[in-house]
Amino acid sequence: MNTGEDQARILEGLKAFLRIPSISTLAGRQPDIRRAAEFVLAELQAAGLERARLIEGAGNPLVYGEWLGAPGEPTLLLYGHYDVQPPDPLEEWRSPPFEPEVRGQDIFARGASDDKGQTYILIQAVRALVKARGRLPVNVRFLIEGEEEVGGEHIERYVSGHAAELQADAAVICDTEMFAPGLPTLCVGLRGIVYAELDVQGADHDLHSGVYGGAAPNPLQAVAEILAALKDREGRIRIPGIYDRVRAPAEEERAAWARLPFDEAAYTRQEMGARELVGEPGVGLFERLWARPTFEVHGIAGGFTGPGAKTVIPARAVAKISLRLAPDQEPAEVEQQLRDAVARACPRGITAEVRPIHSAPPSVVDPDNRFIRAAARALEEVFGQETVYIRSGGSIPIVGLFRRHLGIPSVLMGFGLPDDNLHAPNEKLHLPNFFRGIEAVARYLDLAGGQGNQAAPAPA
Amino acid sequence: MNTGEDQARILEGLKAFLRIPSISTLAGRQPDIRRAAEFVLAELQAAGLERARLIEGAGNPLVYGEWLGAPGEPTLLLYGHYDVQPPDPLEEWRSPPFEPEVRGQDIFARGASDDKGQTYILIQAVRALVKARGRLPVNVRFLIEGEEEVGGEHIERYVSGHAAELQADAAVICDTEMFAPGLPTLCVGLRGIVYAELDVQGADHDLHSGVYGGAAPNPLQAVAEILAALKDREGRIRIPGIYDRVRAPAEEERAAWARLPFDEAAYTRQEMGARELVGEPGVGLFERLWARPTFEVHGIAGGFTGPGAKTVIPARAVAKISLRLAPDQEPAEVEQQLRDAVARACPRGITAEVRPIHSAPPSVVDPDNRFIRAAARALEEVFGQETVYIRSGGSIPIVGLFRRHLGIPSVLMGFGLPDDNLHAPNEKLHLPNFFRGIEAVARYLDLAGGQGNQAAPAPA
Repeated sequence: MNTGEDQARILEGLKAFLRIPSISTLAGRQPDIRRAAEFVLAELQAAGLERARLIEGAGNPLVYGEWLGAPGEPTLLLYGHYDVQPPDPLEEWRSPPFEPEVRGQDIFARGASDDKGQTYILIQAVRALVKARGRLPVNVRFLIEGEEEVGGEHIERYVSGHAAELQADAAVICDTEMFAPGLPTLCVGLRGIVYAELDVQGADHDLHSGVYGGAAPNPLQAVAEILAALKDREGRIRIPGIYDRVRAPAEEERAAWARLPFDEAAYTRQEMGARELVGEPGVGLFERLWARPTFEVHGIAGGFTGPGAKTVIPARAVAKISLRLAPDQEPAEVEQQLRDAVARACPRGITAEVRPIHSAPPSVVDPDNRFIRAAARALEEVFGQETVYIRSGGSIPIVGLFRRHLGIPSVLMGFGLPDDNLHAPNEKLHLPNFFRGIEAVARYLDLAGGQGNQAAPAPA
Repeated sequence: MNTGEDQARILEGLKAFLRIPSISTLAGRQPDIRRAAEFVLAELQAAGLERARLIEGAGNPLVYGEWLGAPGEPTLLLYGHYDVQPPDPLEEWRSPPFEPEVRGQDIFARGASDDKGQTYILIQAVRALVKARGRLPVNVRFLIEGEEEVGGEHIERYVSGHAAELQADAAVICDTEMFAPGLPTLCVGLRGIVYAELDVQGADHDLHSGVYGGAAPNPLQAVAEILAALKDREGRIRIPGIYDRVRAPAEEERAAWARLPFDEAAYTRQEMGARELVGEPGVGLFERLWARPTFEVHGIAGGFTGPGAKTVIPARAVAKISLRLAPDQEPAEVEQQLRDAVARACPRGITAEVRPIHSAPPSVVDPDNRFIRAAARALEEVFGQETVYIRSGGSIPIVGLFRRHLGIPSVLMGFGLPDDNLHAPNEKLHLPNFFRGIEAVARYLDLAGGQGNQAAPAPA
């Protein structure tokens, strides 16, 4: 679809986008956040979008643009994000994180895959169609946010308050990955999440273990006891009721997962760097990762962790914990189950409180949905292979948000790869995926609009 | 014994000592460490000690001084330390930690009780006798160290290599506390310690809990499982063999503990700030604190503990743990028992290593020892109450060191109080204890030397 000249221009545009250090977790990067939002705005305008503008509010600006010139055709809500993760640890980058560098067929930079590169795929696909034909086969609304890496509060408030203005038939989210290089992939299920702090208090001040050891409650030991009570050594969650609403995947879906090209030894040892896989006995790997709840502890604060020794019994300890939720678990119910289980597991002399931080429901999309079928076909045409349906073990809260407030399904069409180093040093995007992604999204818009027989647009 | 004028001079000397921020854990405080050592040196010289000098070596200087002019009389090794704990958190101090302030009958400063104030008691007691009589009733050697708060490696090497030069009949350690205000107390037992890091590894890099949760080993959860396996919810240590060598206190000693003036409710709620006492069921409080082994976790590092949420499964976690040892447990054996128990408790996919940091054996002293009897009598004379014998749940490694290398018992004559805020903000020393302490030590030197009937010295 793209000529070499075209590709060079698009690549330069991507590089300009990647050079902006729009790190949303760092307050000092606010000017860069705004620069990135304005960059996206200019790109939407250049792509022919109308009413393109920044939506200001409490938080980082949303970028909006629309093209609604196809009455009778469906409307797609195209989502991406322009904010990125911090690049630390800097010393592990082979090239500076905000100086994009092409090495071989990959472009390396923070945000290359997550999510500037993929956001740019959406914009360039629309631009190519508009330039070639002066119009689009469907109606589109772009909604690009700048807080995806920090909880997305602005978009949540905006979507919940402006459902009518965002009316659409489906959302297209370009922020996931392909199961394997060259293998077109649609993600049709996501786990939800309940993230919380477990706040544990013993005495009201730190105590010396020599003087008080044997009489004083130890909140760190209490955290250990509670965590060990909530999950057994085999990986089964021991929170009463937690599995009650978990819906087993259909046999057909399980069978499809079993056919995925997968090298478990390479996954375990190279990708994860682990000696062996763990988790619920008797449950297959993809089901454990995608369709079963999990319980994890992410950090434990309290006491002394510096070099050497300090014999303190701390007054307080706080653990960061989360549960991933499988369909059809409900976050509020899981939170209550967690609270109850913690109360039961709490030892003598200790008070334990569960403080929710954020949550998102799980979701599954029916693969027979017409927007999913069109996406599968577009990917197959461009990549020349049958599209596989997978799920993701992660949580993309925007999917639940769109379903809840706009009543629409999300098509998760992603062009990242499993080794893209998201949130890690040397993040990259595979450039063949990038250019084919633009082609596939353009083709998708045709197919979603019932223009399936029209040829792909010539380059602008 | 001391006139008011005398007391004023001694108090000024103590304040000068307390003004030196000789924090041994902070590398940047090396010049202050040296200043403190030189301060002690000058005080020993002023007190009439001979061959007073700094003993240099790998670590902070030891300060030595001797008076050996009483042939045929016993030799006492007087021990204290000039280094102090860091003062953090600074904002909780009512007056700056290194600007000593007298409020009521207490002097507030870091090191007031632990151990500059008590070290100064030893020096001033000797000084008072020398000034009054030109001689001492016994031979003494001072050995004051500057690494007590960081493991005391220098003194350990020095004592083990110079046993002949340190020949003595007993050590006097002035670094403990009285059981209650005004109640003369001798500590005749100490717990030992095995302090270690539990280093737990899962995958070789951090993993995202959305992507890998359900398959990845979680080292923080493994730490929790191991800790929960090593101690049960009631406080019993579940390390096989751990109680085998524990010697129960004699009925007589238990009975004496039961007679100690003690308000359990005040201890629990005011002193500890806890809601209830915990620990081994069916074992009395003082026995739990002084004569039973305990297992504590002091800190757990690994993963994410900042504000907000991060869904990381860390590659590694490290817990700081310790066991307090009761007579007659042996550190090396306990270390091996701990290693074995950790290996058994370690879950699948995880490697766990126990890395020893330091250890000390427990010790008990026979109260019928002549040096202990003399101390009890000296305290009784000065404080006007019968001396009580207690133990300490803490570990004073120097006691084991003196016994092992010099073959001598230690007399733990301390003048701190339970509410002195050791290692905490607003550390203090009760000034009446300080001055009576000087008197009591001076009287003790008389009694230890068989000069029991001589009157206490007049002030200098």
